[in-house]
Amino acid sequence: MQAFSILEPISDQLNLVDDRLQEFSNSSDLPSLKELLTHVFDSTGKLARPALTLLTAGFHPNDGEKVVTMATAVEMLHVATLIHDDTVDEADTRRGRVTVSSNWGQHTAVLLGDYVFAASATYVCATGNIRVIKRFSETIMDLSRGQMQETANSRNIDHGLEDYLERIYFKTASLFSTSGESGSILSGAPESTVQILKTYSEKIGLAFQVVDDVLDITGTEQEIGKPVGSDLLNGVITLPTIYAMEDTNCRKEIERFLEDPSNSALHSEIVKMVKSSDVKERSYEYAQRLIEEAKLAIEPLEENDCKRSLLLLADFIISRNN
Amino acid sequence: MQAFSILEPISDQLNLVDDRLQEFSNSSDLPSLKELLTHVFDSTGKLARPALTLLTAGFHPNDGEKVVTMATAVEMLHVATLIHDDTVDEADTRRGRVTVSSNWGQHTAVLLGDYVFAASATYVCATGNIRVIKRFSETIMDLSRGQMQETANSRNIDHGLEDYLERIYFKTASLFSTSGESGSILSGAPESTVQILKTYSEKIGLAFQVVDDVLDITGTEQEIGKPVGSDLLNGVITLPTIYAMEDTNCRKEIERFLEDPSNSALHSEIVKMVKSSDVKERSYEYAQRLIEEAKLAIEPLEENDCKRSLLLLADFIISRNN
Repeated sequence: MQAFSILEPISDQLNLVDDRLQEFSNSSDLPSLKELLTHVFDSTGKLARPALTLLTAGFHPNDGEKVVTMATAVEMLHVATLIHDDTVDEADTRRGRVTVSSNWGQHTAVLLGDYVFAASATYVCATGNIRVIKRFSETIMDLSRGQMQETANSRNIDHGLEDYLERIYFKTASLFSTSGESGSILSGAPESTVQILKTYSEKIGLAFQVVDDVLDITGTEQEIGKPVGSDLLNGVITLPTIYAMEDTNCRKEIERFLEDPSNSALHSEIVKMVKSSDVKERSYEYAQRLIEEAKLAIEPLEENDCKRSLLLLADFIISRNN
Repeated sequence: MQAFSILEPISDQLNLVDDRLQEFSNSSDLPSLKELLTHVFDSTGKLARPALTLLTAGFHPNDGEKVVTMATAVEMLHVATLIHDDTVDEADTRRGRVTVSSNWGQHTAVLLGDYVFAASATYVCATGNIRVIKRFSETIMDLSRGQMQETANSRNIDHGLEDYLERIYFKTASLFSTSGESGSILSGAPESTVQILKTYSEKIGLAFQVVDDVLDITGTEQEIGKPVGSDLLNGVITLPTIYAMEDTNCRKEIERFLEDPSNSALHSEIVKMVKSSDVKERSYEYAQRLIEEAKLAIEPLEENDCKRSLLLLADFIISRNN
């Protein structure tokens, strides 16, 4: 994450998370496995999810041990998901590096993803908290369910706002929610605080995905690291598409493209149409509402550095461009 | 499993496991997911692993609730593994039915496997036993590690007995071991009993895989449900191949085949050579030793129906032909 001040209250703990990830990737005695693990854990991502776990633990005194372990698990789970997602999407690069599936083959990617999934679960087990372990397992179900829903509803133009929100909850917000919920549970915070932080985390998770889906159309290829309009190309109906289809002309063009996805001229035309419409603004307004709800949710919490960071993190999610 | 008397002491509980599996496969509100789950849980396998969990729980009084939950989880994990294995191996059929990857595509199979993996973990969580949950996660790591080792050592003729045993521990015996260990832990048995049943389960797991690897060469295509000599075809070095390569002539032919795996005449010739040698007998002797060790391990346990079934189960593992 670029906005360093957000991470200031947890910078030492975040370094510990990074150490643990490096330790894990160096731990295998099987050379081929070590090479793969080093590859996937060497490229530092945004660390948004572990940051969330660490920040939500800042509302009750605790020694930080379990929370750091959980934050490590949360990032490992995210990495495992990316390995399988890249396999399913046949993506060539991720975070500027070749993907496991493109470089070592889909088969290796499936098994490596399984290994990292399971390893993340052993870290969660180390917290000794059954409630957190259960939430974690349910989240893995949600993540795969979200991806399956995306596939099942591919090219389905009747996929409306409600379906979209359900899908992005499973695909993205569930892990955000669990990251925040588990941070507060493991800090020993009272249930009312846990529920507040869970709500906050779910809302910013939904907003995060909405922004992702807008950037897919309005970002540059360099910013988003994939071709502009990839979602439409893959038949995935997102909020911008749902808004765009309210215009009859645009809907017809999208229908026409979904029936003939090789028509790249039409694809460019649709992207241009959407860019020049008010779809971007309306989608950002939607995300902004979620962010305001998230910020409102944590209002009752005591004022401290972590709360300030959570408020900044919420705003950062809207302002980011990659 | 055909040998019904083995299952007699646990037949009611095994029915409960089956009910839970059916319940799980019908539980999804996503029609496409429900269809997939019904497909994979509709074909009844040998249920060797859940049987092991139920039988090893028979040495300490318990209400059976947690044990049935665990036995369900163990079978779900096994099914998840098969879904990903069939994806990796590009298998067309399994248990006489089309595989998920061949019918719905590799992508769906990856995600469905993830979903069932995670679902199995939620069942283990329901036992509330952290030790069992941790062993379960470690076992998933072992399973994927074993498969990765198989890929990494493919066509490596220097792969000796020790490497082979390590690999089949990860690939197969680890889950057997966890099935038996968790059954006894959840029954509340003392640690000495747990260790005995863990040893027994690991040994029969190793023997199970050795027999599988022998059947791959000596079985008929109808019995084993895949082409004879599939392991060699896929470059996987198993105990029969290791024994066969002690003969200089046979080693040369195998080397030659591994360098040119499209030479199907040579493949048939090697299978014939191995079949007419003493490799089958020697491999069975190896498996038999493991079985004797397993039976010896449980000698100190009290005599009861479950012990009798465990002794029969050990013998059944050697005598099965599919």
